[in-house]
Amino acid sequence: MDDKTFLLEKIKLEGFKYRYIETNRNSYAVCMGNDDYDIRKLGNLPGIKDVHFIDDSYVLVSRMWRTQDTVIEFPDGLTISRDELTIVAGPCSVESEEQVVETVTLLKQKGVRFMRGGVFKPRSSPYSFRGLGIDGLKFFSKHCRDNNIKVVTEVMDNSQIEKMYDYVDVFQVGARNMQNFDLLDALGKVDKPVLLKRGLSATLDELLSSAEYVFSGGNEDVILCERGVRGFDKTFRNTLDLNAIPYLKEKSHLPVFCDPSHGVGVRQYVEVMAMAAIMANADGIMLEIHSTPEKALSDGFQTLSFNEFADSVRRMRKTYNFRKSLFS
Amino acid sequence: MDDKTFLLEKIKLEGFKYRYIETNRNSYAVCMGNDDYDIRKLGNLPGIKDVHFIDDSYVLVSRMWRTQDTVIEFPDGLTISRDELTIVAGPCSVESEEQVVETVTLLKQKGVRFMRGGVFKPRSSPYSFRGLGIDGLKFFSKHCRDNNIKVVTEVMDNSQIEKMYDYVDVFQVGARNMQNFDLLDALGKVDKPVLLKRGLSATLDELLSSAEYVFSGGNEDVILCERGVRGFDKTFRNTLDLNAIPYLKEKSHLPVFCDPSHGVGVRQYVEVMAMAAIMANADGIMLEIHSTPEKALSDGFQTLSFNEFADSVRRMRKTYNFRKSLFS
Amino acid sequence: MDDKTFLLEKIKLEGFKYRYIETNRNSYAVCMGNDDYDIRKLGNLPGIKDVHFIDDSYVLVSRMWRTQDTVIEFPDGLTISRDELTIVAGPCSVESEEQVVETVTLLKQKGVRFMRGGVFKPRSSPYSFRGLGIDGLKFFSKHCRDNNIKVVTEVMDNSQIEKMYDYVDVFQVGARNMQNFDLLDALGKVDKPVLLKRGLSATLDELLSSAEYVFSGGNEDVILCERGVRGFDKTFRNTLDLNAIPYLKEKSHLPVFCDPSHGVGVRQYVEVMAMAAIMANADGIMLEIHSTPEKALSDGFQTLSFNEFADSVRRMRKTYNFRKSLFS
Amino acid sequence: MDDKTFLLEKIKLEGFKYRYIETNRNSYAVCMGNDDYDIRKLGNLPGIKDVHFIDDSYVLVSRMWRTQDTVIEFPDGLTISRDELTIVAGPCSVESEEQVVETVTLLKQKGVRFMRGGVFKPRSSPYSFRGLGIDGLKFFSKHCRDNNIKVVTEVMDNSQIEKMYDYVDVFQVGARNMQNFDLLDALGKVDKPVLLKRGLSATLDELLSSAEYVFSGGNEDVILCERGVRGFDKTFRNTLDLNAIPYLKEKSHLPVFCDPSHGVGVRQYVEVMAMAAIMANADGIMLEIHSTPEKALSDGFQTLSFNEFADSVRRMRKTYNFRKSLFS
Repeated sequence: MDDKTFLLEKIKLEGFKYRYIETNRNSYAVCMGNDDYDIRKLGNLPGIKDVHFIDDSYVLVSRMWRTQDTVIEFPDGLTISRDELTIVAGPCSVESEEQVVETVTLLKQKGVRFMRGGVFKPRSSPYSFRGLGIDGLKFFSKHCRDNNIKVVTEVMDNSQIEKMYDYVDVFQVGARNMQNFDLLDALGKVDKPVLLKRGLSATLDELLSSAEYVFSGGNEDVILCERGVRGFDKTFRNTLDLNAIPYLKEKSHLPVFCDPSHGVGVRQYVEVMAMAAIMANADGIMLEIHSTPEKALSDGFQTLSFNEFADSVRRMRKTYNFRKSLFS
Repeated sequence: MDDKTFLLEKIKLEGFKYRYIETNRNSYAVCMGNDDYDIRKLGNLPGIKDVHFIDDSYVLVSRMWRTQDTVIEFPDGLTISRDELTIVAGPCSVESEEQVVETVTLLKQKGVRFMRGGVFKPRSSPYSFRGLGIDGLKFFSKHCRDNNIKVVTEVMDNSQIEKMYDYVDVFQVGARNMQNFDLLDALGKVDKPVLLKRGLSATLDELLSSAEYVFSGGNEDVILCERGVRGFDKTFRNTLDLNAIPYLKEKSHLPVFCDPSHGVGVRQYVEVMAMAAIMANADGIMLEIHSTPEKALSDGFQTLSFNEFADSVRRMRKTYNFRKSLFS
Repeated sequence: MDDKTFLLEKIKLEGFKYRYIETNRNSYAVCMGNDDYDIRKLGNLPGIKDVHFIDDSYVLVSRMWRTQDTVIEFPDGLTISRDELTIVAGPCSVESEEQVVETVTLLKQKGVRFMRGGVFKPRSSPYSFRGLGIDGLKFFSKHCRDNNIKVVTEVMDNSQIEKMYDYVDVFQVGARNMQNFDLLDALGKVDKPVLLKRGLSATLDELLSSAEYVFSGGNEDVILCERGVRGFDKTFRNTLDLNAIPYLKEKSHLPVFCDPSHGVGVRQYVEVMAMAAIMANADGIMLEIHSTPEKALSDGFQTLSFNEFADSVRRMRKTYNFRKSLFS
Repeated sequence: MDDKTFLLEKIKLEGFKYRYIETNRNSYAVCMGNDDYDIRKLGNLPGIKDVHFIDDSYVLVSRMWRTQDTVIEFPDGLTISRDELTIVAGPCSVESEEQVVETVTLLKQKGVRFMRGGVFKPRSSPYSFRGLGIDGLKFFSKHCRDNNIKVVTEVMDNSQIEKMYDYVDVFQVGARNMQNFDLLDALGKVDKPVLLKRGLSATLDELLSSAEYVFSGGNEDVILCERGVRGFDKTFRNTLDLNAIPYLKEKSHLPVFCDPSHGVGVRQYVEVMAMAAIMANADGIMLEIHSTPEKALSDGFQTLSFNEFADSVRRMRKTYNFRKSLFS
């Protein structure tokens, strides 16, 4: 009987239910039930590296289990982590190849390594523009890769994963899909990072439980993203809940981003909320930008112009460095 | 050039965008743009039955377009409509064949023609019981059909539709999937009714726009269902928003149901809220029942026992009849 | 040492904090702390009628303490209780003597015994019409009393109580003042009933705790009123939370009213929500009515016309009787 | 006929309703109605300094009318303005003279010029500790004044204003009283600044309209304070809405503070949210501190210890200076 079989037998004998999980990085056995058990009895078994007791409603994304921060590494060595500021920028929707080219040019010039852009767009009405689909993704991806920029784009349904796979670097799950559990399961089988946005009325523990779906499905490379919740005050499109940032950073080991474009929904306040998010300890900022926001096919009112963005990048980085210096 | 080609050419010439829609019942052209147009010019074309101007954000589900109430008819002649009270009852999750048998027996005895029961369960945590899947659906369906009872069950992902199809009479879309637009599109291609639950923080117009996805996808047989929204007061699991019922009845021509089990989330208040919903003009009530609620694998605290249900059925029907008499 | 002194000494000796309360009906000692105490030791003391253990956050308004329903009796024998349907109707604001006269005439004709009407109006903007004040109250009161109709009107500040006292039968506390604790304290000293509306974002336990202020201040005659809460969906002015009705009825012994005019905020849905509230077990309905709603100085869009009201009264009473028959 | 009389006659003749307002600084005529009027016709009248058209729902607190930022000046020359960071700190409730002395000592040492402390406490339950009242205020005030520190304390009812007046430097209006319009009116007559906290479910325009009450009542010295709103997610006591800060700064000319103690409600996140608020452009931070938070009579779980506070002051000031340098 090998170590694994022996362990799983032992777990059953001790009265646990368990789920054995193999991810892109390692293997874990999540055991449930029998709260009074002295877990050291399992920790001593051959082949076991570590054993922890966790009482959050999520397990593998909990810091109670893993205290070391997750570092996401791309094949070319680029990373997303809690040790750097990641900026992701681009249009709400990919509209044309020309638009991609000019955005890529700007990002490259500013040293921004991630471009966002929707090709499958969740829209309340079936008659709204729903994105260019795979064709748009192809040229979006081509120009990004030619310039060493990573492609971040939303996947809306697990039937899209396979055809998107070759062209995507980070799969984004939108707020409306945060509890599309089949999609989360499917993304657990993918070996590319997942950026998971908080649902419109999701609690923070629900967000973490959704991240647990992806992680326990096999994919450890998950990024959490606060993007505002739905509240009673319609002054803004959403209520950006920056309380979320320090909480998610403490409760989990995953990188935590903030999307102020959706979070406040009004162009003139996007930058100031980005900087507030950075001071609240965000590891990344996701922004909508457009060469001519007033002509954008969607979300123009919350989109920064190229010039506004250029200034913002400089100030966001300064703010991040200031924050680091403040606590070092 | 046939009538249809001629019409679509004309629509383009007049400066409209359009979507040509063929449903399980009829064909429609939804034209967008050019608000000042005298629509009678289109109404006179050959092959056109009716033309209407609509300024809701939804179109085909709007009463501005169709004033006649939708009647959903099953192959055996059973109907769901605004002219009768439909009761749908069953467990949160299908747990065993025995459970299905005893529930079917009860429903038959009480003259209830629809049984609900989840076999694919959306659960916040990946480690919770997620349903018996297709195997459960098969025996669920068998016993229902043997007894002339319709199967209502949740579909969570469009990849499930095909394998579920033979065993399902009404596809339920859960609150978390109300804006899973790929699923809605796919259900538009199915020739069985769709029961669409309101999302946890969806506005009523968003619910109607989601119904528009199904309808414009080709399936006119949509049922709307209020099941409570997420609010600040945690006295109850959700805040049942009965204001929704008369609004949805007025704005659309679809049948409108209410699910008080989720809407209030506490067994002892389920019946009273069911009757309030009927007085608010609901056309159907969807309830969770279990022979021994305290042993249910999910949602036991909001589930009626068989005895409670039997009494409730009698009182719900009386209330429905009282309401009819009051306004006749 | 008299019984009372002896009791209070004993309570102190046993390690409790206490508050000794004399109301318009009786005397109570609310003891706090020492949860493990065998309360029968106090129950046997001379002069003690009853002793109960309560673990709600409110005490004297809790049904854990008093199981018998509160009946509020006016000097002329008229009552508000859980054994009858109380209808309260009138304009949002008292606008003129003529208006009062025509409203009183209608109410009398329909056998409605309570008229509402604001003379001190809480308005978001200081420049809005803020009511006719005491002068309006005087003629409002005169015509009501001439016709055996009770005056229900909002008090906004404790400085108003004394000057309003002679002209008021029921002091209404508005949603914005539900946690104006000085006002609640002051109303505890008044020997007229208090109708306490739920705050815009108050939990039900907060509403009950506010009722506890009035009761423990000395006034047992409190009516609770659900009037809708503030939610994310702006389809309606408020989200009427009918779940509140059965909860408040179970948790307390006070009469529970519903105000569908504010709760839904749109005239055409007011009646249907009134009837839903009655089926949800409300003991009273509070309605805004106006001879010409479109000319009302405030809230016209949610106000019933006299004709609409006349029909509604008939149907509300039928619904109440139906409900009673259903459970008898 | 003097200039004022002449002006008011003219205003009436031109078909406006108006309110003539004399504040502690100046006189204004707010005219309502007649939106098409060419306001220059009034601007040319003798004695008129300025005339503006405003279409916000508030007027005198709107930046459409006054573009210059409000500077609040105390008799000794100390100011609250948009040109400096104001820190207000102290216990939730004043508990003892000793506590005041040690807090004052700390504040003086750190150069903090404002101390907060409740002596009238709004509490959900009538049986909770409700503050030391005027006696507590007297020693609170004495020690502050001996040390050149301003007293910030909550007034709950207009009957308290007169007896508090001599001992208070800034009257605080709590969230539960933001729409206690009689209190706001009364504070308009006071010649000391008012710190107005946002209500639990108040929109930002409602907050500004409440400020308009104080201003139009005669008191221009109003400070706005975001302190979190009530949301669906109970991870935190409130949802701190930092979107509010840049909005209030743009829409009005008043200083805008933030209270992260209530806004997040958990000690370990208070400082980080304070700094996020400063980056969001707050002019002041209001904090709860206590020498031994775990022994505080109220709100201990959200209260900083003296040591935590000392570090925070240093970092908040650095952050404020950083922010200034970033945009200069």
